[in-house]
Amino acid sequence: MSKDRLYLYDTTLRDGQQTQGVQFSTDEKKRIAAILDALGLDYIEGGWPGANPTDSDFFDAAPTTRATMTAFGMTKRSGRSAENDDVLAAVLNAGTPAVCLVGKAHDFHVETALGIPLAENIDNIRASFAHIKAQGREAIFDAEHFFDGWKANRAYALEAVHAAYDAGADWIVLCDTNGGTLPPEIGRIVADVIDSGIPGTRLGIHCHNDTETAVAGSLAAVDAGARQVQGTLSGLGERCGNANLTTLLAVLALKEPYASRYETNTTPESLKGLRRAARQLDDILNRVPQKQAPFVGASAFAHKAGLHASAILKDPTTYEHIDPTAVGNSRVVPMSNQAGQSNLRQRLAEAGLEVERGDPALAAMLETVKTRESEGYAYDGAQASFELIARTELGLMEHKFFEVERYRVISERRRNARGELVIVSEAVVTVALPDGTQTTSFYQNENPTEQQDAGPVNALAVALSKDLGPYQEMIADWRLVDFKVRITNGGTEAVTRVIIDSEDSTGRRWSTVGVSANIVDASFEAMVDAIRWKLVQAGARPC
Amino acid sequence: MSKDRLYLYDTTLRDGQQTQGVQFSTDEKKRIAAILDALGLDYIEGGWPGANPTDSDFFDAAPTTRATMTAFGMTKRSGRSAENDDVLAAVLNAGTPAVCLVGKAHDFHVETALGIPLAENIDNIRASFAHIKAQGREAIFDAEHFFDGWKANRAYALEAVHAAYDAGADWIVLCDTNGGTLPPEIGRIVADVIDSGIPGTRLGIHCHNDTETAVAGSLAAVDAGARQVQGTLSGLGERCGNANLTTLLAVLALKEPYASRYETNTTPESLKGLRRAARQLDDILNRVPQKQAPFVGASAFAHKAGLHASAILKDPTTYEHIDPTAVGNSRVVPMSNQAGQSNLRQRLAEAGLEVERGDPALAAMLETVKTRESEGYAYDGAQASFELIARTELGLMEHKFFEVERYRVISERRRNARGELVIVSEAVVTVALPDGTQTTSFYQNENPTEQQDAGPVNALAVALSKDLGPYQEMIADWRLVDFKVRITNGGTEAVTRVIIDSEDSTGRRWSTVGVSANIVDASFEAMVDAIRWKLVQAGARPC
Repeated sequence: MSKDRLYLYDTTLRDGQQTQGVQFSTDEKKRIAAILDALGLDYIEGGWPGANPTDSDFFDAAPTTRATMTAFGMTKRSGRSAENDDVLAAVLNAGTPAVCLVGKAHDFHVETALGIPLAENIDNIRASFAHIKAQGREAIFDAEHFFDGWKANRAYALEAVHAAYDAGADWIVLCDTNGGTLPPEIGRIVADVIDSGIPGTRLGIHCHNDTETAVAGSLAAVDAGARQVQGTLSGLGERCGNANLTTLLAVLALKEPYASRYETNTTPESLKGLRRAARQLDDILNRVPQKQAPFVGASAFAHKAGLHASAILKDPTTYEHIDPTAVGNSRVVPMSNQAGQSNLRQRLAEAGLEVERGDPALAAMLETVKTRESEGYAYDGAQASFELIARTELGLMEHKFFEVERYRVISERRRNARGELVIVSEAVVTVALPDGTQTTSFYQNENPTEQQDAGPVNALAVALSKDLGPYQEMIADWRLVDFKVRITNGGTEAVTRVIIDSEDSTGRRWSTVGVSANIVDASFEAMVDAIRWKLVQAGARPC
Repeated sequence: MSKDRLYLYDTTLRDGQQTQGVQFSTDEKKRIAAILDALGLDYIEGGWPGANPTDSDFFDAAPTTRATMTAFGMTKRSGRSAENDDVLAAVLNAGTPAVCLVGKAHDFHVETALGIPLAENIDNIRASFAHIKAQGREAIFDAEHFFDGWKANRAYALEAVHAAYDAGADWIVLCDTNGGTLPPEIGRIVADVIDSGIPGTRLGIHCHNDTETAVAGSLAAVDAGARQVQGTLSGLGERCGNANLTTLLAVLALKEPYASRYETNTTPESLKGLRRAARQLDDILNRVPQKQAPFVGASAFAHKAGLHASAILKDPTTYEHIDPTAVGNSRVVPMSNQAGQSNLRQRLAEAGLEVERGDPALAAMLETVKTRESEGYAYDGAQASFELIARTELGLMEHKFFEVERYRVISERRRNARGELVIVSEAVVTVALPDGTQTTSFYQNENPTEQQDAGPVNALAVALSKDLGPYQEMIADWRLVDFKVRITNGGTEAVTRVIIDSEDSTGRRWSTVGVSANIVDASFEAMVDAIRWKLVQAGARPC
């Protein structure tokens, strides 16, 4: 049986950004686009060019992706032609191969929110899509409030989507904007749209999770014939979020009848990156990962009940609906510890470290990672710190290049000699080198005159990297570009976890982690890891 | 049309306790039982008497509830009679009006996990239910792995549930133990069980959320005819959790076709306690509430997108599928877009500040918020800091209670007198009071001997709140419970944004924000806001 092609459309960078408290920087958008691309999504909606500086910046230098980069906007406004609508022009000027425009499909919204005659809205939709197609772009119509509109005025809702379809729109995406439509109703309405003459191969579904059924609603639309599914990584999005693509990717690839019936751009290999992708997003959002998240959560394959755990040891399929390694996750069973070695070998290979199956260093590494994670460390994002552990267990790091003997950092708010309120930070770091010598470095910064590079963490970073003796040349271009702080549990106490992102003059970026009850000390630990990792890369030898 | 009666069965205290990291005390179980009872649930499964001391203690003095208190256990073991099985006896000895026993309905599990002949398992089920019914109890059969069992060996799965039914079981609960069955399949299999001769009025559904479709799967079973729904508060439970009863309560009461078709024990009044019930559970679990939780999350009715916010002002039904007050929640229109004055007035009203339309303070407030957001502040979450800005613009905070003259904080890693490596943090804070006096406070902490409350931010917090003169009594119970740090853009420079969550002895929690190039200074600013907000709430007067 030949499989139908299902297309996956991601809107993390646009609808996902409507999550309360979420505001991506341009750089973060690029990192997320790379994560999405690696997962094998078909479309990446990058944002709304012209709507805000971050989205505009993103499209000014949009990353090259295998996925079709898509700009989002809205259908032309009334009282001007599509050619003369500057909002629409800004969207087209982003130069993306695909353009997605939202337009109203619910009579109530046309009259209440837009305040224009119903026929005028239809004209606006038609003219907008004719214009996009004339420019040779792939055109996607986001039919806002389609389901509520269909229930209120079926004829008008269908007229709206047919206007876009007749004007050449490649995809008609049916949006359950308020998230209130339950799956069986979604299925029935999608079937009605297909009956009205728009083939399922041109229909998409866009669900929100307000009734906790966005995944099921998306699947109901696919069952009814829709062939594009929209959603976001980990279900980010306005209110309760969008349909969770992280879950949908796994369900479509691994669960029946979907696995046999449909083909997507996801491969078994890319699916193994699913858990890590979710963690990377958490890192970017600086939030605690949801343990209970389906497929990718730390608890998703954790078997706590005694009866379950003993059966799992006899046969894992007794209490698991899929193999956790298929999504890069692993089983957690209180009494067993043999999970994860193949995941580990794969991650080591990514770092250029080939380790034989069954090498006893693997068990030691897992044990170290597990112990340290129970203390509050997190290695999903901090790949460089993980590599240092791996190298240590493999006997490749018998020497740590340098040891920090002591440091002291002071931050002070006071008036300076001119009576101005200033914030002063200063740091002293003493480092022991392999040849038995010590170096001591000092650095001070003062605000507000020197806004940048301020604060105790930066002062420590500068002092630490000021004089590392024979290694100095190798680390001179090290820069601390971001740090994230989180209070977490280490054993029974609250501790602070700091993740530091570093960069050097080659543009290479790497992440390290430190944990301590003291935020400065946790930062310092992550910095020391960052420098050691850079020395490893530079091929430094203890001297 | 007369409505069908739907029964809601809660297993938070049993299956919910299988959540990784969750372990209820007996007292917590009682508090949760009271929350469940207030919500109008029909059955409360209190635990497994005899399985662990906490569950046994709970049943020794089980709270009086309107809901039917239910003890959980398993069908009798092989090789002894139901009367002589001490595990089963312990369950019956709890003396509850209802008893729920789990038993196997999947041939693979009988042979792999139990290791007994298939017929013997059927005998065990039959004998167990005959025994319970002979004792005059309401009897519930949890048919474990029923859906996987039906797919593997339909005849055997049906034989198992009919054995319980024929022996007098009042309810046959079909369990999707591994959480892998998708909603349409659940609907088909439930319909088949009804066809086999067990009426829907005697059938229950028990879903897990491993494919993020537990709510939809439960609804599919109801659509097919099942009349008991099992789940847990906020979807607690093993792995990805059970079906979320918090969501199901709201969907069944407020969404069609359920609201018109079914009657439950929930009233419109009890439903208004839903949000609060979810928060009380979070408090008991000591966890951060999930903002995006359907119906009850803080973001569930938060409208961030500019287009949405302006339409909501015209008519809330434009972007809301239900009235948030029906579940005790409320609408949030965040500040972080060009939301306009009416949104602002609504947010002020929520803080108890009624401001007339057109008051010039509104424009000034918007301007201040906008300016500060461009500097890196974020007021989406930091409601208390927002309130301080509002009060200042309204002329309600002519005095800020106290001013910080200067502070100094030191963190140092060094060896102590005993040669141990320690981290020491110390802080000195000087505060000016309205009467012209100054107080200076000092605090020092040292790791690792004192793991908790360590680091420079904590040292500053302790020093700052050690002596605020006449205000000291009002802030003595202030606690810093969480802080989040983010590097962001303030104008052209990178700055650090710190959001601090505070709590006091009343359990009240509030959030404040600080921004600086220096992390310590940003934390300090947020702390000062936190204390000022608490003084406002306490009705402090400049003295």
